[in-house]
Amino acid sequence: MLKPIDFRPVILAGGSGTRFWPRSRRARAKQVLALDGEKSMIQQTVERLKPLAGLDKTWIVTNEFLAQEIADQLPGLPAEQIVQEPVARNTAPACGLAAFLIEKLNPDAVLGVFPSDHVIADEPRFLKALQKGIKLAAAGENIVVLGIEPVRAETGYGYIETGDLAQDDSALHVRRFTEKPNQNRAEEFVAAGSYYWNSGMFLWSARTLANAVREHLPETAPLLEGIAATWGTHNFEETFRALYPKCENISVDYAVLEPRSAKGEHLSNLYCLPAEFSWNDLGSWASLYEYQLETRLRGDPEGNVADTGGHMAIEASDNYIFSPKKFVALVGVENLVVVDTEDALLIAHRDHSQDVGKIVKELGLTGKNELL
Amino acid sequence: MLKPIDFRPVILAGGSGTRFWPRSRRARAKQVLALDGEKSMIQQTVERLKPLAGLDKTWIVTNEFLAQEIADQLPGLPAEQIVQEPVARNTAPACGLAAFLIEKLNPDAVLGVFPSDHVIADEPRFLKALQKGIKLAAAGENIVVLGIEPVRAETGYGYIETGDLAQDDSALHVRRFTEKPNQNRAEEFVAAGSYYWNSGMFLWSARTLANAVREHLPETAPLLEGIAATWGTHNFEETFRALYPKCENISVDYAVLEPRSAKGEHLSNLYCLPAEFSWNDLGSWASLYEYQLETRLRGDPEGNVADTGGHMAIEASDNYIFSPKKFVALVGVENLVVVDTEDALLIAHRDHSQDVGKIVKELGLTGKNELL
Repeated sequence: MLKPIDFRPVILAGGSGTRFWPRSRRARAKQVLALDGEKSMIQQTVERLKPLAGLDKTWIVTNEFLAQEIADQLPGLPAEQIVQEPVARNTAPACGLAAFLIEKLNPDAVLGVFPSDHVIADEPRFLKALQKGIKLAAAGENIVVLGIEPVRAETGYGYIETGDLAQDDSALHVRRFTEKPNQNRAEEFVAAGSYYWNSGMFLWSARTLANAVREHLPETAPLLEGIAATWGTHNFEETFRALYPKCENISVDYAVLEPRSAKGEHLSNLYCLPAEFSWNDLGSWASLYEYQLETRLRGDPEGNVADTGGHMAIEASDNYIFSPKKFVALVGVENLVVVDTEDALLIAHRDHSQDVGKIVKELGLTGKNELL
Repeated sequence: MLKPIDFRPVILAGGSGTRFWPRSRRARAKQVLALDGEKSMIQQTVERLKPLAGLDKTWIVTNEFLAQEIADQLPGLPAEQIVQEPVARNTAPACGLAAFLIEKLNPDAVLGVFPSDHVIADEPRFLKALQKGIKLAAAGENIVVLGIEPVRAETGYGYIETGDLAQDDSALHVRRFTEKPNQNRAEEFVAAGSYYWNSGMFLWSARTLANAVREHLPETAPLLEGIAATWGTHNFEETFRALYPKCENISVDYAVLEPRSAKGEHLSNLYCLPAEFSWNDLGSWASLYEYQLETRLRGDPEGNVADTGGHMAIEASDNYIFSPKKFVALVGVENLVVVDTEDALLIAHRDHSQDVGKIVKELGLTGKNELL
C-alpha cells in the first residue's frame, strides 16, 4: 500500500491590504474581512483546503496585528501553528521558515503555499488541480506553481512562460518567470498562449523548499533554521524577534523560483499546473467590483454593485458601493468606488483604485494612526 | 415729527428644499438647516432683519412639518405669528394671508416678503437697500422688488426688465417680469444691462398688497379674508384647514406682479431696487459649493470644499463634501457632491445636482418615508 501524502497548507496572511482601505485596517486587514460573502477571506481559504488538509495540518504566517483576529476566526487551529512575524520580510523568509518547521516534523510532507486573500469560484476544480499538483510535488524534488490562464493583458501580475508538457501530461515545464510586464509585453504574453499568471500558489515537499532556501538564500537560511530550532520552547519568541529582522526582505519568486528557472526547463524541476478554476486576487476595489459583477447577482441593471442598506441610481452606472447600513443615492455618476465605514469614507474613481494605498501611506506620515 | 414706518417682515418658510436631500428632510428642510455657517438659514434671515424689525414684528409662513422646529429656533417670536399652512398653495396665498392679517393691525405697515433660505453676504448694503425700499413702498401704492444684478446667464431664475429711473433716483421702473428664460434669452438679458434677477424679496404696504390680491385673485381673496377674520380665535385653525386648500395654487409673481407690470411702467407703481449685495438662493448643492468657494476660505487648493472630520484629496478637485464627523478620502474624482448623513449617503455629479429632488420624489413613490 502506498503511504498517503502528508499535505500541509501554509497560508501567507501577513499582508496589510491597504488598497482596501477604509475597510482594511491594521487590525482587520483584507484577509480577515468578509469582502466577498459571509466568511472572511482567510476562513474561505482554510475551508476550501479542508477536504485535503484539516486544521491540525494547517499553518498560518501572519503579523502581530492580525494574529489574534485570525485565531478567533479559526477556532481549532493549533495556536503554535499561527506563526507571528515580528517584522514583515516578504514571502521568502515566511515560506522558508515554514519549510524548516515542517521539515522537522516530516521532510516528505508536501507544503502548499497559499495567499490568504484570493477568491476561487470553482472549488471542485481547484481541489482536483491541487491533488494533481500535490502528487507531482511529492514525486521527488519538484516545484509546482499553479498558473492561471490569462483572460486579459493584466500588468499587475507576474507571468510564467511554459514549455514542454511534463511526461505524465499533468503539468507544463516552466521556462521562465517574468515580473509584472508593461502593457505591450502583457499583450504579447496573452497572444502567445504559452503564458500563465503566477497565482502565488506553490507546492513542494518541505525538504525541497528547505533545500532551495539553503541554496538560494545562504545567509537567511541559517537564521530561519535557528528560529525553527527553538519552536515549541520558551525561547522561540525571543529568537524570532532577534533573528527574523536580519533575514533578506525578498519574495519567494525572486529568491527561489527565478534563479531555479534559469537552469533550463528540463533541469529546474519547475512545473506550472494550469488551473481551470475562476480565480481573482482581489487586488483592489476595482477587481472586487469586477469579480462580484461577473460571479454574482449583486449588480443592478446599470452595472452598479451595491452592498448597502438600499440604493437608488439616477443616470448612474458601473459603480461599486459599500455602505451596509445606509441608504445610498447615486445621481449622474459613473465608475466610482464608494466605501463608507464608521469613521472614514472613500470616494475613488475605479481607474484610480490602485492609488488607495497612497491614502494609507499619507495617513501614516501625518500621524493619523486611528485611521490606519 | 414724521411717524416712523411700521416695517413687518413676512418670511416664507414653507418650502421642502428637496434638492438638499439627504440633509434636507420633511421635518428639517433647507430653511432650518445651518447650510452655511453656525446658524440655520431662517435664523440668519431673521437676524439680518433685526436692525429694522424685531421678533415682535416678524411673521413666518410655514408648514406643519417645520413649525415646531422654527419655533424652537426662534425663541421670542410670538407663536401666533408662525402661520402654519395646512397645505402648500405657493406664494400668492401665503403673501395674501399675511397681507390681510397685517392690514387688520395696521394697513400702513410696510410688509416685506423674504425667502427664508437665501444667503446674503453683505449685510450693511442689504440693510441700506432695504431702508430705501421701505421708504419707497411706504410712499403710496408702490410695490418694490429687490433685483440682483445678473453675473451669469442663469436659466434657473426669473428676470425683471427695468425702464426709467424713478423720480428720486432710488429705484427703476419695472417694464416686465419674465419667467425662467432659455439659455439664449438669458444671455441676451445679461448683455442688455437693463435686466435683473428676481430675488423673491418684495416690499409693499399691507393695504397695497391686500388690494392687489383682491384685484388679481378675486376668488382667493375672500377665502383668505375669511381665514384672517378668525385669527386669534379658537376657530382659526379649523377655518384655515377648511378654506386654505380652496385657494388658487399660484406664485405672487404670476398672480400679482406680472399682470401689474402689463399696465405699463409708469402706471404700474412697480419698482425694481437694484441690490448691491452678494446674494445666492442656494438652489442646489452645486450653488452652495460655488457660494462657499467664493465667499469662504473653506476650499483646499484643488477647489474641494469640505465640511468633514478631516479630508485628503489625491488627484481630486472641485468636489463638495459634507460629512461632518467622518474622515473623507477622495482619489481621482472631480466635480462631485458627496453628502453623508446618519442614514443616507448621496453621491452626485455637480452638473446633476438639480436632479437630487428626483431621488426624494422616487423615495416618496416607493414608500420609503423614513428617508423623506
